[in-house]
Amino acid sequence: MPSIFTKIISGEIPCYKIAEDSDNFAFLDINPNSKGHTLCVPKKEVDKLLDLDEESYNKLMLFSRKVGKAIEAAISCKRVGMTVIGLEVPHVHVHLIPLHSMKNVTFAHKESMGPEEFESIAEKIRNYIK
Amino acid sequence: MPSIFTKIISGEIPCYKIAEDSDNFAFLDINPNSKGHTLCVPKKEVDKLLDLDEESYNKLMLFSRKVGKAIEAAISCKRVGMTVIGLEVPHVHVHLIPLHSMKNVTFAHKESMGPEEFESIAEKIRNYIK
Repeated sequence: MPSIFTKIISGEIPCYKIAEDSDNFAFLDINPNSKGHTLCVPKKEVDKLLDLDEESYNKLMLFSRKVGKAIEAAISCKRVGMTVIGLEVPHVHVHLIPLHSMKNVTFAHKESMGPEEFESIAEKIRNYIK
Repeated sequence: MPSIFTKIISGEIPCYKIAEDSDNFAFLDINPNSKGHTLCVPKKEVDKLLDLDEESYNKLMLFSRKVGKAIEAAISCKRVGMTVIGLEVPHVHVHLIPLHSMKNVTFAHKESMGPEEFESIAEKIRNYIK
C-alpha cells in the first residue's frame, strides 16, 4: 500500500505544496511544530534515511537545503532546524522547522492554523524558492 | 574565541572520538539523549547549517551518513535519527541519535553514563566506520 506521503505526492491527498523536482517533493506539515514547518520527501518510497542510496540521499539533502533557505528567508525565526526521525510514517521525510526555542523541536507543542494561513505561508515560502 | 567544538577538534578539550576526515569530526555527545548519541561537526567554524557553502554542506551530510550507518550497526535501536538545531552552540553540529521512542528526540531526557561506558560505546561504533 502506498504511504501517505506517496498519496500526497501523487495528488490523491491534497497538500500545501512548496517545491518539487524529479526526485523530491516538499509540502507544509499539516500538524506543524511552528508556522512554516515543512516536510521534504523523496519520491522513491524508502523507510529509513540511512537506507537511501548515496545519490538519492545527496539529492534529498541538497533539495532540503534549497527549501530550508527559502523558509529562512520567508519566515521570521532564529534559524531553520532540520530533523529526520521516522518512527511514525515509514517513508523518509526531512522536517524543516522554523525555530524560536527548543520547544519547537520536541514535537509536543503544535501550532493551530486555518486553511487560509497555510496557503498564505506556502505562497510566501514558494516565492523564495530559487 | 574558538567554539567548544573547535577546542574538542583541536584536542584542547578531550572527547570520545568516533571519526575524522579532512573536513569533519565526530565524537560522542557528553550529555546524550540515548546511548551512542554522536555529534558530527565541520572543522570550519560556521554558525548555521544553511550558511555552509554547498560543498561543505554536502561533505558534512555524507560524513554524517557514514557515521550514522556505523551507529546503526553498533547500537541496538529502532533507527538513527538526525537533527540539526544549533540554538546553543554557534558552530554547526549534526546530532545522530539512536532512537527507541519519541522521548529520544526531545532533548529533555538524558542518559547518565560513566567514562568506561562512553569509551566502550565509542569503540563499538568506531569498529563499524568504513
